[in-house]
Amino acid sequence: MADFKYLKKIKSPNDLQSLSLEQLNILCEEIREQMIETVSQNGGHLSSNLGTVELTVALHRVFNGTDDSIVFDVGHQCYTHKMLTGRFDSIDTIRTEGGISGFPKREESPYDAFNVGHSSTSISAAYGIARGKELLDIDGSTVAVIGDGALTGGLAYEGLNNAGRSKKNFIVVLNDNHMSISRNVGAVAKYLKGMRINPKYLKAKSRVEKGLSHTPILGNPIRKIIRHSKSTLRNMVYKSTLFDDMGFAYYGPVDGHDLHQLINTLNAAKHVSGPVLVHAVTVKGKGYSFAENDPKGFHGISAFDIETGEPNCSKVGFSAVFGKKLCEMAKDDKRICAITAAMAAGTGLTEFASEYKDRFFDVGIAEAHAVTFAGGLAAEGVLPVFAVYSTFLQRSIDQIIHDLALQKLHVIIAVDRAGIVGEDGETHQGVFDVSLLNPVPNVIIYSPCYFDELEREMQVSAYTNNEVIVIRYPRGSQSYRPKDFHSSKKTYDIYGDQSSDILIITYGRIFSNCCIALDRLAEQGKSVCILKLNRIKPIPKEAILFAQNYSRIFFFEEGMATGGVGEHFDYELSRYNYNCEFTLTAIDDKYIKQAPVQSSLKRLSLDCDGIVNVINGIKE
Amino acid sequence: MADFKYLKKIKSPNDLQSLSLEQLNILCEEIREQMIETVSQNGGHLSSNLGTVELTVALHRVFNGTDDSIVFDVGHQCYTHKMLTGRFDSIDTIRTEGGISGFPKREESPYDAFNVGHSSTSISAAYGIARGKELLDIDGSTVAVIGDGALTGGLAYEGLNNAGRSKKNFIVVLNDNHMSISRNVGAVAKYLKGMRINPKYLKAKSRVEKGLSHTPILGNPIRKIIRHSKSTLRNMVYKSTLFDDMGFAYYGPVDGHDLHQLINTLNAAKHVSGPVLVHAVTVKGKGYSFAENDPKGFHGISAFDIETGEPNCSKVGFSAVFGKKLCEMAKDDKRICAITAAMAAGTGLTEFASEYKDRFFDVGIAEAHAVTFAGGLAAEGVLPVFAVYSTFLQRSIDQIIHDLALQKLHVIIAVDRAGIVGEDGETHQGVFDVSLLNPVPNVIIYSPCYFDELEREMQVSAYTNNEVIVIRYPRGSQSYRPKDFHSSKKTYDIYGDQSSDILIITYGRIFSNCCIALDRLAEQGKSVCILKLNRIKPIPKEAILFAQNYSRIFFFEEGMATGGVGEHFDYELSRYNYNCEFTLTAIDDKYIKQAPVQSSLKRLSLDCDGIVNVINGIKE
Repeated sequence: MADFKYLKKIKSPNDLQSLSLEQLNILCEEIREQMIETVSQNGGHLSSNLGTVELTVALHRVFNGTDDSIVFDVGHQCYTHKMLTGRFDSIDTIRTEGGISGFPKREESPYDAFNVGHSSTSISAAYGIARGKELLDIDGSTVAVIGDGALTGGLAYEGLNNAGRSKKNFIVVLNDNHMSISRNVGAVAKYLKGMRINPKYLKAKSRVEKGLSHTPILGNPIRKIIRHSKSTLRNMVYKSTLFDDMGFAYYGPVDGHDLHQLINTLNAAKHVSGPVLVHAVTVKGKGYSFAENDPKGFHGISAFDIETGEPNCSKVGFSAVFGKKLCEMAKDDKRICAITAAMAAGTGLTEFASEYKDRFFDVGIAEAHAVTFAGGLAAEGVLPVFAVYSTFLQRSIDQIIHDLALQKLHVIIAVDRAGIVGEDGETHQGVFDVSLLNPVPNVIIYSPCYFDELEREMQVSAYTNNEVIVIRYPRGSQSYRPKDFHSSKKTYDIYGDQSSDILIITYGRIFSNCCIALDRLAEQGKSVCILKLNRIKPIPKEAILFAQNYSRIFFFEEGMATGGVGEHFDYELSRYNYNCEFTLTAIDDKYIKQAPVQSSLKRLSLDCDGIVNVINGIKE
Repeated sequence: MADFKYLKKIKSPNDLQSLSLEQLNILCEEIREQMIETVSQNGGHLSSNLGTVELTVALHRVFNGTDDSIVFDVGHQCYTHKMLTGRFDSIDTIRTEGGISGFPKREESPYDAFNVGHSSTSISAAYGIARGKELLDIDGSTVAVIGDGALTGGLAYEGLNNAGRSKKNFIVVLNDNHMSISRNVGAVAKYLKGMRINPKYLKAKSRVEKGLSHTPILGNPIRKIIRHSKSTLRNMVYKSTLFDDMGFAYYGPVDGHDLHQLINTLNAAKHVSGPVLVHAVTVKGKGYSFAENDPKGFHGISAFDIETGEPNCSKVGFSAVFGKKLCEMAKDDKRICAITAAMAAGTGLTEFASEYKDRFFDVGIAEAHAVTFAGGLAAEGVLPVFAVYSTFLQRSIDQIIHDLALQKLHVIIAVDRAGIVGEDGETHQGVFDVSLLNPVPNVIIYSPCYFDELEREMQVSAYTNNEVIVIRYPRGSQSYRPKDFHSSKKTYDIYGDQSSDILIITYGRIFSNCCIALDRLAEQGKSVCILKLNRIKPIPKEAILFAQNYSRIFFFEEGMATGGVGEHFDYELSRYNYNCEFTLTAIDDKYIKQAPVQSSLKRLSLDCDGIVNVINGIKE
């Protein structure tokens, strides 16, 4: 760690009070240096954190430690906050197993007002905190810090709509960097763009006011001007409209890298009675040229080389295979559309977006809309493919039940980052999707283990099935594949010694680990057979019949046990009155903390050693 | 059916073209008469349907049958639409078993563009349809009809945000009746109120324009005026702002009961290139005095007496018991708050709302916000109780996983209308909540069968548990209770002949049916024991141990089989290597159509006869 003059002395936000503006600016540079260093080592969310250094310093200068509550939306901008709230010494452990989290966590610090990870929750949570303080007569301000990207989520709007009628001070800081993870989209984004025309807003405003006083008499001419230059003139004169309309006093736009402006504005906001929105314009990636030039590329990243900005490793993953295959399919089939909720790059859709502009829809961080919109497209005869991370699909469950499956609409949902995701931790694990989708009628779920399986299942989903199809695949690349394993192109595969009395059942990438375990067990003189489910809902009937040849069944599942495929398989067996020894290894009613994927799998006994031990009856 | 002059001749919307304005107005009266008659017989959504008669007639006059697509939000306003689109002859079957649905259904008519039931989906779905038409070169307009209540839902905002950047014509009709189901809430509602100050909007507007031309020179004076009379002046001059800001051309407000104005405005809207919003102001309950005076009371209702407006039957139900008990608890405990998503009356919170104004939060149709907001309150030390229908809780799954359970926040979720709900059909059945919540860690679920159990479990949830607590109870009243059954106040109860080799396991109201079945079976000389689960997650360990005394287990569950309590119980038994004959009777991977509750339970073999037959091995 560099020998920082100011940063190392900050033990709590109170220590900011004694620093001059100049010193605070140096502090910001130190924070940036540490941030780039840390993320280059541990990976993390660099661009958004670099963009909010001054804003966070200003917040902690103006608001008072633990009495005031600052709720960061998503949490991709909490690194400065962590460094200022007693966690500088452990910042190098961020996102590592046992280290501090990459997201705010109440259990980690009294300065973390609310746990976050998913987008657009901050206003609702902060408004709850504010009303709670009011009801219990607790002093202190409450601030929600939300990006313009998160503002595309309906939950943020629901929050604004409710907080907008507050009678007490309640502060929303809009961190407007023109971006979600990719460039921000939608009418509101366009509207915000109009508002931040000139970063030197004060000058601009005075120019407009000057201009106005030179305009001749009111009447037809001014009415025309007002009508025809609404967006510029009105915004300049009133400063804002959308947020005023939602009940908020609007302050801004403020240069989000000018500490003086920020501190003054936040101080003013603190004394407004009623809800107030501070609009800070920031630059995503600020202060690290590679990130400024490619904020999307440096949004959520793995470890990289600071000098070159190049990632330390790079492999073709499922997302890329999905994206490439979808482009191929779209070439021959004009009905195919792709939808993303602000995750074009993450889900492998960059190429599709540029090749098939008309058929590509980035809807913003709006997973619920994405699904219902896909339903509309499908009702009209289009074939929409919605690519989404497993953890964010949790936001669309009602829409899948109510807007797709009920009408048997032919929509493909490509669920990326299914299973354990690693360093992002609890909020981002893709471990619930199977349990949440299993009870929904008219839904088919595939779970490929290898790239060719993903491609084949995409093809089948588009041209054989015609209901709601979910294809779920893990983050990263494919794993070990035995040379003698060939996909049968059926809904399940069998591998290993069929004459054994032990059957392993699994699906997705855990099959790889089971294959290695099979070899190990063979070395120990124990033969096993593996039933690999390719389609996990409905479970192929033949697979259930096949399983009845075995007296000991071990089911390995990278997801929640309750409501998962294993429990359902067990029940299907009992429907046939088939009794055997059934052992399910899956996630047992708990959240999975941040750790490398392999480490989590090990803890869950889903790595090769774990599988071997489970089968040998060895408890760790 | 009355001998209507015009209504009976309308076989399709095309038949509207030949009618004069006067004749159309008579038609509207006929539709109202039929509507009141039908709902008084079958129950249904009266107030919102009465409010949208002229609007729907105008829509079908201006838009062209099946080429154009009209997506009604929620569907509480589709009765006129159904009568005009070939379903007048079957309108008396609405909401009955085998009859037409109370909601739009694509499988019922080509005029029903999209299935609805839950709120706030119309803009997203309609925008999908519009983009689909565009991609496939299909002619026709697309219209979303949405109430101001539905506009409080985040999904509607996500839809606006996306549709607002459309380059082609896309129409949203805002049916503004100042109400959700109860009086509409939030900043946007307040904003809309400002916009409809004067129903004779044209006169008002011209007055303002006149006024403007009398104002002296521009400069300081006008700037002051603009600043200080923003809400009136700006709205009058620009007509609107919020919707303009979202990219929509704004037309309105229009008197929603003036056919002439409506037809002209919709015709104009049809020719706007780009997104356009037509703001129609309507009166909920229009034309039936009882409903106009109490639109909330006549929102969703059972059969009633037309002359008096009195419902034909009325019983104390779970909602009322919940509301009363919560008031009692709130009296002694200032931390207790109640939250509803626009369902104060439906969930029994009317008394709480008036007695504990400061602690009552109606957040609008915003279930996601309700949960995250509750999380914020709980983080601050308040004890929030969110009362919500099971089917609408589907909208908050991610918030429960991500914002409550992960932080182990002490929030009580009172899940009303759990199980089969009857005439509202597929979209409103409360059959998914258990499967969706079962996989979520740190969640406890109770399922009372009787009022006293509900009260007791509320008490336990508030003062013994401190995680996320879900208490789920059915629509309506409690059912049969054997005289010799006394709740043990434990997490499970045992009833019947413990020495039998047959064990029935169940929870919730199905216990009543099981008790009657037990008596019947006893008459047949067959003794059974019943294990009644009061807490269904986690399943009490003692209950699992108890079940191991029985060689034949029959599990009856009013919910989805997959991921439900029955499957999980079966798996728990196999974890103990306990093998027995296990039969689960639950909903097998399908949606449940509209029918009286008893009829649905019968089809599912969850009524007394069904239970007896299942146990006797008789298949129907």
